[in-house]
Amino acid sequence: MPREITGFSNPLVKQVRGLRDKKHRRLTGLFLAEGLRILTEAFESRILPEMIWHAPDSAAHPLVIQLTEAVEAAGGEVFVTSTDILSKLSGKDNPGAVIGVFRERLTPLATLDRTSAPIWLVAERLRDPGNLGTILRTGDAVGAGGLILIDDCTDPFSVEAIRASMGAIFTQVVAAARWDEFLPWLRSGPGQLVGTSLNTDTDYQTPRYAAPTFLLVGNEAQGLPPEYEAACNLLVKMPMRGKADSLNAAVATAVMAYEVLNQARR
Amino acid sequence: MPREITGFSNPLVKQVRGLRDKKHRRLTGLFLAEGLRILTEAFESRILPEMIWHAPDSAAHPLVIQLTEAVEAAGGEVFVTSTDILSKLSGKDNPGAVIGVFRERLTPLATLDRTSAPIWLVAERLRDPGNLGTILRTGDAVGAGGLILIDDCTDPFSVEAIRASMGAIFTQVVAAARWDEFLPWLRSGPGQLVGTSLNTDTDYQTPRYAAPTFLLVGNEAQGLPPEYEAACNLLVKMPMRGKADSLNAAVATAVMAYEVLNQARR
Repeated sequence: MPREITGFSNPLVKQVRGLRDKKHRRLTGLFLAEGLRILTEAFESRILPEMIWHAPDSAAHPLVIQLTEAVEAAGGEVFVTSTDILSKLSGKDNPGAVIGVFRERLTPLATLDRTSAPIWLVAERLRDPGNLGTILRTGDAVGAGGLILIDDCTDPFSVEAIRASMGAIFTQVVAAARWDEFLPWLRSGPGQLVGTSLNTDTDYQTPRYAAPTFLLVGNEAQGLPPEYEAACNLLVKMPMRGKADSLNAAVATAVMAYEVLNQARR
Repeated sequence: MPREITGFSNPLVKQVRGLRDKKHRRLTGLFLAEGLRILTEAFESRILPEMIWHAPDSAAHPLVIQLTEAVEAAGGEVFVTSTDILSKLSGKDNPGAVIGVFRERLTPLATLDRTSAPIWLVAERLRDPGNLGTILRTGDAVGAGGLILIDDCTDPFSVEAIRASMGAIFTQVVAAARWDEFLPWLRSGPGQLVGTSLNTDTDYQTPRYAAPTFLLVGNEAQGLPPEYEAACNLLVKMPMRGKADSLNAAVATAVMAYEVLNQARR
């Protein structure tokens, strides 16, 4: 049965709200996802939250009933609470109808099946959570195998990253590795490492990409370190017709990923 | 001569800091841009701030010298202030070395020269300032003529939009119009209106785009209204191989814009 929580001072409210901070996520291994659309996406990927919170007037919604029944059947907890407390948990003035508390899942590099998909996205020292979430969303769209985070990237389980992923956090595999773990793993099997860079004359539409293609995008401000570029099988660049010399990192990843997908579609 | 400002309570500090709020921007017609890179981009596009603020230790930087001399020669004001006050103005812990206060410039639709560029970006009820800035940045990259904002979009002069534009606010023309002004203007000259939509089977790589192409992207959550889709010459969609049915708005715009550019390059 759902439990009703009415007080802001309830320790559970404090704990769940704490998941907006990275420190608390690391301590608990849990993260927040909000909105019926994203929670339904998780459910369809057979991922259930450990807790679900919803407002009283969402209780009759068919998708909320389906979700809460599944959560309870799996031994999770369901809480009914006020819109004000949902706002406090999500940090938004207009919170979604439901908030789920999920267990973080990072996939070890060694268990990735690289031949399961033609494209893999790889991001190095990505700093912006919106970019990270958007890259996950693009990965879902192009049928990527997953996203590999290299070195110190922003947390893929932050509220901002989860929001920008629009549910792709539940459909895309996410791995995290240091560069000196990633490179030996990459070389231990098939795969072409393709970096986007200013330090090349190769137009991104010139090469024929061979599956699996690993698309490597670097830090937003600095791009890829020289030794990482040197390790790539290919460096390519997009045409730039204006004054700026680079695209937003999530945009560059998407333009590249659609080129790889389009070649495979021909 | 530069004026030195040392006190947080100085009324100018309060006024400039106020430009982070839309209300104050509307009242004054001014906006903030921060960072030497973006201000230099503006300078190279022959756009000077009305005021420039920098820290004492930036005074010897050749680009700061160039900028401050140009601002003073044009009758603008130069302020030297502490890093703490720069932080307060920019809202960032690590502010750029310089902050400029610029006059907002929206170009009237009637004065746009549509034949000056093969691509124009058009956004309808865009809500996210990061998306707006990123679309401006992409517009610069693909050589777009500018960005036309339809109906109630997020403010292109917000600090977040300016930051995401990475200087493209100074290289791209920005216009704003209601749909019922835009459509007659569009029809009064050459141009193909291409909308991205879920309500079509036309793959985005199938049509041959004819210059000038106006790429129309809709609201992040709702897409385009049906009557706006009906007014398009073409509706197209990107292949979606995953669970999600749409891309981030800035990503969709970029994937489309590079397709149009790539066709023109062949």
